[in-house]
Amino acid sequence: MDADAMLADRGGFPALLGLELLERTDELVTARLPVRDDLLQPFGLVHGGVLATIAETLASVGTMVAVVPQGDGAMGLANQTSFLRPISSGTIHARAIRRHRGRTTWIWDVEMSDDEGRICALTRMTIAVRPQPQ
Amino acid sequence: MDADAMLADRGGFPALLGLELLERTDELVTARLPVRDDLLQPFGLVHGGVLATIAETLASVGTMVAVVPQGDGAMGLANQTSFLRPISSGTIHARAIRRHRGRTTWIWDVEMSDDEGRICALTRMTIAVRPQPQ
Amino acid sequence: MDADAMLADRGGFPALLGLELLERTDELVTARLPVRDDLLQPFGLVHGGVLATIAETLASVGTMVAVVPQGDGAMGLANQTSFLRPISSGTIHARAIRRHRGRTTWIWDVEMSDDEGRICALTRMTIAVRPQPQ
Amino acid sequence: MDADAMLADRGGFPALLGLELLERTDELVTARLPVRDDLLQPFGLVHGGVLATIAETLASVGTMVAVVPQGDGAMGLANQTSFLRPISSGTIHARAIRRHRGRTTWIWDVEMSDDEGRICALTRMTIAVRPQPQ
Repeated sequence: MDADAMLADRGGFPALLGLELLERTDELVTARLPVRDDLLQPFGLVHGGVLATIAETLASVGTMVAVVPQGDGAMGLANQTSFLRPISSGTIHARAIRRHRGRTTWIWDVEMSDDEGRICALTRMTIAVRPQPQ
Repeated sequence: MDADAMLADRGGFPALLGLELLERTDELVTARLPVRDDLLQPFGLVHGGVLATIAETLASVGTMVAVVPQGDGAMGLANQTSFLRPISSGTIHARAIRRHRGRTTWIWDVEMSDDEGRICALTRMTIAVRPQPQ
Repeated sequence: MDADAMLADRGGFPALLGLELLERTDELVTARLPVRDDLLQPFGLVHGGVLATIAETLASVGTMVAVVPQGDGAMGLANQTSFLRPISSGTIHARAIRRHRGRTTWIWDVEMSDDEGRICALTRMTIAVRPQPQ
Repeated sequence: MDADAMLADRGGFPALLGLELLERTDELVTARLPVRDDLLQPFGLVHGGVLATIAETLASVGTMVAVVPQGDGAMGLANQTSFLRPISSGTIHARAIRRHRGRTTWIWDVEMSDDEGRICALTRMTIAVRPQPQ
């Protein structure tokens, strides 16, 4: 897949969720995701895995914006998500900010909020930059 | 929803993934998930969010086995997933072991492996036990 | 110990390190620590435990500022420290910012930098607020 | 410093704490630390930074056993410590078990217990293996 196709981010797991990417630079990535029944856990709240997935996607895309054109790939090394407040409806609003750009490791902080602007989850995401697998 | 229905774990996000739960006790939960194209990220590897979701589901189900019958609910507080080795095909095999059972907090370690038994991801999952939301 | 004495933060482990607290409010705490030989690990770098200790101290003090006067205590639940760049001399400058103030859980982000202002470590610290042990 | 001196682990921050290393192989490291007043936080409990320091020391030493003789160094990348139960006296007993040995990254799980064998803290420690700084 070439860099453009990869960055277009069509298909795959983010598409299964219905994640809509908005801004995407190598310092800031934003996105939104409307809550649906099949994103919930048994108590009717958005599954924590959905929030972890959003965070990982944004951090990966933001890193790829910079490294894919130069022939590298971006892969998650660690995803640390804290859940602060449940969401059960409306839209999840996500915002990833780069905190560190190292030679082989980038770190992003991702904040996910509900329609009232209340923070629901915080992720610290560590991304490895490696030569792109062929 | 009553305890049985909740523990049956039909529908919701784990079903969207196709996660198949096997053993489920309050000390050990196992599951498997066949890899499909719509669980991948752009480089053709299983998306880290899939692995975070598996871990969170197993830890939650294991906690619910004990606390739902007594009227409590289980909710993720923190999901710390480390990615050790990519998976791109075959089946993901997951195994959650309880490490701590506190009054309000449980901790689980979840190990996810590929068909060759190589560990691909490790999650430390913190679950809050709270009175069940009505 | 009364609230004033507790907040004065004399003695104990932070004093063994030589940590000097500067600003201390329930939203922002700053501190500095001059590097000494007995804070190093075998390769001559500041030991990661020193950085984890600084972060935990700042987050705890910031939470205590608000909760000790009302009879509660503050205790670490989880300390997640990422090490970005080694420090071996000079002064460590630390800055803790509150990210979440819940009823029983607070979350702080702590940034530690060297004399050139380069970030050396980032901590996400989860603090539990509980009735103060007698 | 040569490999022997480094592995002897005399001096530095672990010595300031009084940490006593027992077994040390590249798969298992154990240690103990008697609680003293200057290891406490204001509520009279062992400071979380002490536990994070113990964990990081054991994981680093265990990695160094294998990599220092071949000319590499070991440095903490991430320290994720969960605090389960306070300790205020007696001895802290620590046990680090290697969970993953990659080419550039090792992962250790460290368990810290009190004199009654109750787990007080769990750390997942990620160690980077890099050519040794000169």
